[in-house]
Amino acid sequence: MSVIKPSIPKGTRDFSPEILSKRNYLKEKLIRTFKTFGFQSIETPSFERSETLLGKYGDEGDRLIFKILNSGEKIKKADIKALEDENLQRFSNSISQKALRYDLTIPFARYVAQNQNNIQFPFKRYQIQNVWRADRPQHGRFQEFLQCDADVVGERSLWQEVEGILLYDRLFSILNLKGISIKINHRKILAGIAQLIGVKSQLSDFTVALDKLGKIGDRAVINELLQKGFEQKVIDKLKPFLSSKGDFKSKLSKIEVSLSGIEVSNEGIEELKFIHHQLAEKSLKAVTLDLDFTLARGLNYYTGLILEVMPPSNIEIGSLGGGGRYDDLTDLFGLKNTSGFGISFGFDRIFIVLEELNLFPDKLKNQSHFLFLNFGEDSAKLCFDKLMEIRNREIPCEFYPNPTKIKKQMNYANERSIPFVILIGPEEIKKDVFVVKDMNSGNQSEHSISSLVSTLEELFQSL
Amino acid sequence: MSVIKPSIPKGTRDFSPEILSKRNYLKEKLIRTFKTFGFQSIETPSFERSETLLGKYGDEGDRLIFKILNSGEKIKKADIKALEDENLQRFSNSISQKALRYDLTIPFARYVAQNQNNIQFPFKRYQIQNVWRADRPQHGRFQEFLQCDADVVGERSLWQEVEGILLYDRLFSILNLKGISIKINHRKILAGIAQLIGVKSQLSDFTVALDKLGKIGDRAVINELLQKGFEQKVIDKLKPFLSSKGDFKSKLSKIEVSLSGIEVSNEGIEELKFIHHQLAEKSLKAVTLDLDFTLARGLNYYTGLILEVMPPSNIEIGSLGGGGRYDDLTDLFGLKNTSGFGISFGFDRIFIVLEELNLFPDKLKNQSHFLFLNFGEDSAKLCFDKLMEIRNREIPCEFYPNPTKIKKQMNYANERSIPFVILIGPEEIKKDVFVVKDMNSGNQSEHSISSLVSTLEELFQSL
Repeated sequence: MSVIKPSIPKGTRDFSPEILSKRNYLKEKLIRTFKTFGFQSIETPSFERSETLLGKYGDEGDRLIFKILNSGEKIKKADIKALEDENLQRFSNSISQKALRYDLTIPFARYVAQNQNNIQFPFKRYQIQNVWRADRPQHGRFQEFLQCDADVVGERSLWQEVEGILLYDRLFSILNLKGISIKINHRKILAGIAQLIGVKSQLSDFTVALDKLGKIGDRAVINELLQKGFEQKVIDKLKPFLSSKGDFKSKLSKIEVSLSGIEVSNEGIEELKFIHHQLAEKSLKAVTLDLDFTLARGLNYYTGLILEVMPPSNIEIGSLGGGGRYDDLTDLFGLKNTSGFGISFGFDRIFIVLEELNLFPDKLKNQSHFLFLNFGEDSAKLCFDKLMEIRNREIPCEFYPNPTKIKKQMNYANERSIPFVILIGPEEIKKDVFVVKDMNSGNQSEHSISSLVSTLEELFQSL
Repeated sequence: MSVIKPSIPKGTRDFSPEILSKRNYLKEKLIRTFKTFGFQSIETPSFERSETLLGKYGDEGDRLIFKILNSGEKIKKADIKALEDENLQRFSNSISQKALRYDLTIPFARYVAQNQNNIQFPFKRYQIQNVWRADRPQHGRFQEFLQCDADVVGERSLWQEVEGILLYDRLFSILNLKGISIKINHRKILAGIAQLIGVKSQLSDFTVALDKLGKIGDRAVINELLQKGFEQKVIDKLKPFLSSKGDFKSKLSKIEVSLSGIEVSNEGIEELKFIHHQLAEKSLKAVTLDLDFTLARGLNYYTGLILEVMPPSNIEIGSLGGGGRYDDLTDLFGLKNTSGFGISFGFDRIFIVLEELNLFPDKLKNQSHFLFLNFGEDSAKLCFDKLMEIRNREIPCEFYPNPTKIKKQMNYANERSIPFVILIGPEEIKKDVFVVKDMNSGNQSEHSISSLVSTLEELFQSL
């Protein structure tokens, strides 16, 4: 076999032990928070049948879905005619019937519909799994990344929105991440605005354009609307909503006046009142709420409250999560009348923010606490016995595999940041003692062999 | 959009909260054991460049690797000529450059070679990730399944073999799984046998045929050897090795005599002596060692000790894991002279064995301990405040989202196996009390609201 230059596909990542210990710290905080709020975990397959995924994320989404080639002889059925006609979709469908998960929401809807008879509703589930997108890789955007979602379906209740926001607040509190702002809007208020400015029938185009506001700015959005055939007078009516000022309560009062008489928005306004009132009483610790009538969220399935989580203002990065109320997601798979509310966490972006703000704990106990040096076979046997006793106490430790130069062994402990080294050489065996060296201070002390397990246990506890 | 019948691809699985809590129990035990032995975790991408994987697992392996279709316009480059020529490999390579991970070993070798300058050797890593194989699904065999590997590379030492076997012993001990036998052999003993019976030059054919012994039996293996051109007299010489009897030590003595004068096997015999001697002194708790000269392990990269973990004899299932010493795996990616020793755990099969022997703990604390019933808005507000206090103590609890019939809410608690229900209705609010109902015994008791947090904390601790 010829030698291959080792590398990985663009947009993917290897995770070293150092990075993983931080990722696991964040993952564990997420899991603990989800559980505390009564969410249970499920997992779905990495690939789904293509028809489960295709057509659910818009044309752009379809293009970004990774398709899996049929195995073996099946690719003989390739539709060459379709390829010649440049009908790439038909061609790829002729050689592929499975696709990698693009998000966790559609597989979740599929799961709920498929298992509806075994599920006790309201069903509160969290899911932390990879998703894959054939996006052009760039800083902070990958082709494989971790998504973390919490959803509740069945038994529609506004307490679920309240709880979702409290969940964000709790996670960011325990991560010690302050200055998060949660943008909030309601699809029915957007519908009201669309009706007011006379574009009710183009609600979808309207929200898609509006959704880009954060990325491309007011002017570009207005240009896009003009291009899509919206009239100038419509846009003039829209402008006040693009720059509403004040706190949550006063903005809500203002829009109630602006939209008075428009029925569709009443429900949205009442819902936001309830949610804001409940939250105001709960004293959020890490997040503030920001009512933003320009927040649209592109995905068509939202029907009620929508939200987006913004990082502290001194950090240049996109939203850290988002979510909202949807009413008919499981309809796609034949389960009707099942309202749901879901929120998601952008794992990689939260990771970057914690890194930038230096919020990971210094000591993440992810590795060996003791290295037993190797002085040759007699010493090795004794060390190995002690090693097993220590491990029986679930204390991570290791033994240097060869009796090489002590300097090299010490260096290994240093590079691996192993805090203590244990020396039991021929001299120590004669004297029935062992030496423990603190690699940080350089101090070393001698103890009786019989006290080894208890001494090391104390050192481990004290770390 | 038309309604899609919800289903998942054959050979894949959804995991419900109940199953996942058991899977997580097993995963956590594995992780804790790996860490205790000083292994650190890494993760590699789900897909690799095709050239990293193809050609590493034999023709059979190549066929079973899932390939990912190139995105967008790139599939226009499909090599139609290759398809017409029925050169399916060339055709698929023209439209696919990435493939899903087939095992964890090759990606690990790629990782080590790629990151050799940042790695401190000996490098002890564990890895628990999914792998994908386009195998025909059957009982206990899936297209997506979890692999768990622990490997150490660099600094060749027989203590690594000793440690690997102790690691199996420790895991099965803490899982309370007894009656495991570990089959052991050595590639150099196999080489010695091949030389003795005069098939030195056909070592690979010989081991591949031998490897099937467990599956197809003596006769079929002999037939396969005859078919491959091995002579009858060769097979007569082989027969004694197919049915060697006695304990580890006596088998080893016997083969030492049989293979005396054959240099290649000496080293293997000496290694097994050392390893067995060290382990004999360590009193294995859950596993016994079984020297088996017919154990071959198909993969060509093994060069030293090989092993395979067999389930308790009353369970009908294949091996629960395996591994061995390899000397030049990273050579494939340009890193020479890096010996390694690795073991793997068949997660799904161990899961099945634990299930069959009823070895999962009864109470896996994976969900809410308290359900607060919903009696309408006044009660809801009070409950919600208390809920947050309980959650601040990391006690999982939830609130029924709607003030529906109490019977329905109670039923939800029952179905979800939530052990305690908290009732704060209008009567209780008036009296400034709450009622806690034990769902198992049916007992209920009344307490002052001010003692709610402490009462629930006690109940949680006592579970």
